[in-house]
Amino acid sequence: MTSEPLESQPIPAGRLEGFAAEAFQAVGVPLGDAKTIAQLMTRIDLRGLDGHGIFRLPQYIQRIKAGGINVNPNIRIARETSSTALIDGDNSVGHLAVGEAVRVAMEKAEKCGVAWVGTNNSNHAGAASIYAMMPLERDMIGLYVAVGSANHLPPWGGIEMLLSTNPIACAIPGLEESPIVLDMATTVASYGKVKMAAERDETMPEGWMIDVKGNPLTDPKRAEEGFLLPIGGYKGYGLALIFGLLAGTLNGAAMGRDVIDFNKDQGTLTNTGQFIIALDIKAFADVEMFKRNVDGVIRTMKESPPLPAVEKIMVPGEQSDEKRKQRNRDGVPIPKSLLARLDTLAAELKIRTLV
Amino acid sequence: MTSEPLESQPIPAGRLEGFAAEAFQAVGVPLGDAKTIAQLMTRIDLRGLDGHGIFRLPQYIQRIKAGGINVNPNIRIARETSSTALIDGDNSVGHLAVGEAVRVAMEKAEKCGVAWVGTNNSNHAGAASIYAMMPLERDMIGLYVAVGSANHLPPWGGIEMLLSTNPIACAIPGLEESPIVLDMATTVASYGKVKMAAERDETMPEGWMIDVKGNPLTDPKRAEEGFLLPIGGYKGYGLALIFGLLAGTLNGAAMGRDVIDFNKDQGTLTNTGQFIIALDIKAFADVEMFKRNVDGVIRTMKESPPLPAVEKIMVPGEQSDEKRKQRNRDGVPIPKSLLARLDTLAAELKIRTLV
Repeated sequence: MTSEPLESQPIPAGRLEGFAAEAFQAVGVPLGDAKTIAQLMTRIDLRGLDGHGIFRLPQYIQRIKAGGINVNPNIRIARETSSTALIDGDNSVGHLAVGEAVRVAMEKAEKCGVAWVGTNNSNHAGAASIYAMMPLERDMIGLYVAVGSANHLPPWGGIEMLLSTNPIACAIPGLEESPIVLDMATTVASYGKVKMAAERDETMPEGWMIDVKGNPLTDPKRAEEGFLLPIGGYKGYGLALIFGLLAGTLNGAAMGRDVIDFNKDQGTLTNTGQFIIALDIKAFADVEMFKRNVDGVIRTMKESPPLPAVEKIMVPGEQSDEKRKQRNRDGVPIPKSLLARLDTLAAELKIRTLV
Repeated sequence: MTSEPLESQPIPAGRLEGFAAEAFQAVGVPLGDAKTIAQLMTRIDLRGLDGHGIFRLPQYIQRIKAGGINVNPNIRIARETSSTALIDGDNSVGHLAVGEAVRVAMEKAEKCGVAWVGTNNSNHAGAASIYAMMPLERDMIGLYVAVGSANHLPPWGGIEMLLSTNPIACAIPGLEESPIVLDMATTVASYGKVKMAAERDETMPEGWMIDVKGNPLTDPKRAEEGFLLPIGGYKGYGLALIFGLLAGTLNGAAMGRDVIDFNKDQGTLTNTGQFIIALDIKAFADVEMFKRNVDGVIRTMKESPPLPAVEKIMVPGEQSDEKRKQRNRDGVPIPKSLLARLDTLAAELKIRTLV
């Protein structure tokens, strides 16, 4: 799934960002917000997280047009203590609600050492890692969890899809090394990856999905006939469940049967929940020494002997960081099929096409 | 692995606790501390986490006798902010250092909404879930992560065991339902389970371990010739790595190549690290309403339709809670081989035998 699609066209990141910003403006999102969202979406594409960036633009726009997202939200702190807050996103584009949550978390962590900030009335916010990475600028560790925007996972042993892929992301800085950035769904594959596989006419490996009879499902175009499998069986189910309770239920956000499938239902409020923890490194250690020790761990892992068939050992985030450098230089490869849909979108919105 | 061993003898929990407390006292642990540790160890056995309770007693005692654990520690706060603390365990029995970390975390969370407390110079503290469950008494959610006490996991694609099984536990209360209690290693199986399988002369399923050539390893007595596999491949590796950085490196505790194998080396300081997050529910929601909503999620999961071969759908912690009730009533089944080792221990320490 990490290979570039054959039929794609490289687009400069700046152009992607400009296109997305214009699209959001065309449906009534104020200029500043449109730019913020577009910048975050482009950051996602640059890191190679193709299922969560510009790929989602037509869906976001469609939802706004259907009245399912508020383009003039009053994002506010609904509840707070010195180290916690609950952000009411007022049904904004998810990127805005979560961005505000991260800002509040960093401010509180600066004073208290750690902060845990949750959201409700938020929406799909793209890839988890970009939010976990924001605290890095302040020498903080970020840890982010979201309730996914559609249920694709039954409880372990069940067949009713009551859980989402509920991802976790965590970013930990190195000194000379790039930060460790974990970004993972609690399922073997994210639904975004399944959608990208369909987009690219690829077959999924066994182990990603099964059908309702328990048989392997490998055709991503048949994804609706089955469900995703959790990592480590009941363990991944357990993680998805507690992440859903912490990011959803605790925040008064949707969880379990209340989660709307935002791929199918454009008008109903999703009431998506997320949470971010910002952890101030200096509360625990000398910042430079800590980063140097992280470098040491990274190098120990990377320089350790590989299995015969393995070219090199990597750390989480390394591949995305390499993609970022490469795509900043060469542009973001956009599959032709997605390009066609973005052209249709441009025509609908009466904005300039991407290319 | 959940089946009771055939050759075992049920021991009342109170007797287990008394035996463990006497054993610790016999090697110089003060009465109060000995009772605290014994109580926590018995709580682990009652919950069916057999690889982490009384099973570990001979090893703990051996380490104390070898000078690898300090029986008169000065457990203290080495660093703190309003919402964080770093506890220096002074090489105490892990149960004492972590117990203190949880106490400090709850106190800080009561004032600030959330607290994150780490440990260093700690030791193996048994099963993760008992610490995650402590905040439940104060209507708080507990989330606990530990660096394991021996490296059994290489980085993904590697063959050098640089990571431990670094477990996570999380406890979330229901109102009428038992709390959700997740307690999982980031490997498919914990090393404790492997040791129990060896103890019980059982074969391990494929997928738990591989040998250095990458072939499945199913004989638990050959465990030293191979290594554990992470859940979800690179995802479990990623979790083990960030948990190690957060519970180890950030706290100035051992991580990566610095982790001592406490199964083999009894005298060297382990400098084990852990962290606990206590999250005050009332900072986010009305406590009773939240618990009721958790009940709702639990029931939704449990009442959903199962796969044909599945008897009932469970939630994390349910099986351990059933075990607790059953073992409180019928006693804790101790395998004969363990019983023999505890008899040897009793003779060594000149204390009354378990039975």
